[in-house]
Amino acid sequence: MQDHAIRLGVIGTGLAVERLHWPALQRLKHEYTITAFANHSRPKAEHFANYAGVSMDDYAEDYRDLLGRSDLDAVLISLPIPMNYPVTKAALEAGKHVICEKPAGIDDAEGRKFIELIETFQDLIVLITENSFYQDTARLARSLIDKGALGRLHLASWRTVSQLVPKAGEFSSTPWRHDPGYEGGPHLDAGVHHTAIIRLLCGDVSHVSGVTQDANTTHGGPSDLSLNLKFVSGAVGNYTAGYPELAVPKEPNDLRLYGTEGVMSFGYRQLTVSRPEEPDAVYRTGQVDGGHFNAFVNFFEAIRLGEPVVGTVAQTFRNMQIVLDGLESARRGVVRAIDPYPSELSATALPLWSPVRSDPLFDNPDYVTVEHG
Amino acid sequence: MQDHAIRLGVIGTGLAVERLHWPALQRLKHEYTITAFANHSRPKAEHFANYAGVSMDDYAEDYRDLLGRSDLDAVLISLPIPMNYPVTKAALEAGKHVICEKPAGIDDAEGRKFIELIETFQDLIVLITENSFYQDTARLARSLIDKGALGRLHLASWRTVSQLVPKAGEFSSTPWRHDPGYEGGPHLDAGVHHTAIIRLLCGDVSHVSGVTQDANTTHGGPSDLSLNLKFVSGAVGNYTAGYPELAVPKEPNDLRLYGTEGVMSFGYRQLTVSRPEEPDAVYRTGQVDGGHFNAFVNFFEAIRLGEPVVGTVAQTFRNMQIVLDGLESARRGVVRAIDPYPSELSATALPLWSPVRSDPLFDNPDYVTVEHG
Repeated sequence: MQDHAIRLGVIGTGLAVERLHWPALQRLKHEYTITAFANHSRPKAEHFANYAGVSMDDYAEDYRDLLGRSDLDAVLISLPIPMNYPVTKAALEAGKHVICEKPAGIDDAEGRKFIELIETFQDLIVLITENSFYQDTARLARSLIDKGALGRLHLASWRTVSQLVPKAGEFSSTPWRHDPGYEGGPHLDAGVHHTAIIRLLCGDVSHVSGVTQDANTTHGGPSDLSLNLKFVSGAVGNYTAGYPELAVPKEPNDLRLYGTEGVMSFGYRQLTVSRPEEPDAVYRTGQVDGGHFNAFVNFFEAIRLGEPVVGTVAQTFRNMQIVLDGLESARRGVVRAIDPYPSELSATALPLWSPVRSDPLFDNPDYVTVEHG
Repeated sequence: MQDHAIRLGVIGTGLAVERLHWPALQRLKHEYTITAFANHSRPKAEHFANYAGVSMDDYAEDYRDLLGRSDLDAVLISLPIPMNYPVTKAALEAGKHVICEKPAGIDDAEGRKFIELIETFQDLIVLITENSFYQDTARLARSLIDKGALGRLHLASWRTVSQLVPKAGEFSSTPWRHDPGYEGGPHLDAGVHHTAIIRLLCGDVSHVSGVTQDANTTHGGPSDLSLNLKFVSGAVGNYTAGYPELAVPKEPNDLRLYGTEGVMSFGYRQLTVSRPEEPDAVYRTGQVDGGHFNAFVNFFEAIRLGEPVVGTVAQTFRNMQIVLDGLESARRGVVRAIDPYPSELSATALPLWSPVRSDPLFDNPDYVTVEHG
């Protein structure tokens, strides 16, 4: 009965679908068919119908009409953050599997409700598209760390500072980001990708302390956030993210991981491992996108083959917790211990995702290029 | 009566004198005469006598014998950190002005005793050679900030990570650094220079939270320290310093200051100011050393002209406090408010030093080169 492609309803057809999801779905035509789509704005829906080659007959202005269709297996939810929880809830109640943009809720309370929700619908798959979990360079980094490339990690450091002002046609311009309706502004929107990478490579954070500063009038939430981190492993680290209004000069913007046997510099689609007595090794992968393709593969294999989901609600909630507890730490002037809900914190918090189908990263020797120098 | 050069006794004639103080004193022959010197090791004293061109007749094995001489105006104390307080005390009791290496004491309690000590001897000058206060590039940076080059500072960030293992003939090899007898190891020894720069450019720190990690068996104290900082001005920042045993790849190692009107990248003897709509400006000064020459000028002018000392015990104590409170924060898992002893904390905590004599930095237009690009 399950031989057909997954019949997907797309709820929200904005920039994230155009830039992130549709390019992945295009490469997965045997796995997914777009059966229906919803947007409160008809012009945006028409734009989507046009580039995705779907018929306006399958359009619904109200996502609840879409959920009422019996010919849908699953929905993709790509809406402003405050919609993630209520629309996922409605979709599960309608019996649909869900793949939903991050983060899992607007705050700690809603994140916990989100986890309880999926426990209620155990027969349905819910995957939060935290693409960083699935990014090939990140998976490669994790596999090198697992093999001992760095020895014992003792220090992690990441500073990322870049101008954030509304630019027409970019994510920065979407109105809900200026008055976001959730705490943390860009740190909960963009920053959770960074905490996802940090958790994938360093394990869970046990304690966080933060300082914040407001220096951007064009976005909601504090612009600067600096978090000191204690990891379950015993390592420590700092994550400093700045989204100022002013343009800043070129920044290094790499995560550095310092171990007793090596140092890793993790950048965008490139990583370098430096070990004593060895030439530096620069790795580049052939990855096709920021991880969305792989997320859809995981979603497909979870539905069809019963494979575990890596981007679970609980895992993406953990990414949020680092930001939210950091913000709370800054407000209250205290160090926060992360509440290990819904399960124990772990030094290898996140499984390293690998698909059942052939994985170019680990199965194709030509997929990763290495330069020594 | 005070027309002669200051008759200086040198207590401790190790690497710091050879590398830092003697080159400065050589340029100040009209201001200083080395009249006596002490070292518990006669071979080290002979080495000093040789390069400094002084007679072994003026050598004392015990610094207390040196202090008993009536033909000394002042002493330079260049000893392991735990000796700074007791030897300064003995020198003041012997009626000598003191110029002493940083930091002012081994811990918070001794630092406070140090401040009380100099209050007891108000007729004598005490200058702690925190050369960073006097460094020309740092003074230039501060003058640009004072002129408004950055607008309102909102974020400061500095990561400095470098291998620290004993190397023959370098500071890293001196035995007292491996078993230092003071808390914080390299962070109290080397790190206080960084906190001096941070205070000079950003003002006082009001709150600090820290995490530490031990990953170096060759030095006492934690190897990694990451401090989140709240400044009196309202800005926030992070200072991460790592002294691992393992070699690390090239690091940026610049202090970045993010303001509402500009960004400064402050490096060693070079700084860059980036402002919107303007080409980046790269400044380099002609400074002759890390600031020791200027410190000796300040000491001379304080004794001869009654000029204020910038490198006071209280100011260098404040630098220490950031490190010591950061370490305490890490141990206890709390955010620490800096105790504003001996006076109020301030957003312009440190005066910008400028000599009575001509100051190349501000009086000679050729001394600073600026490249735009």
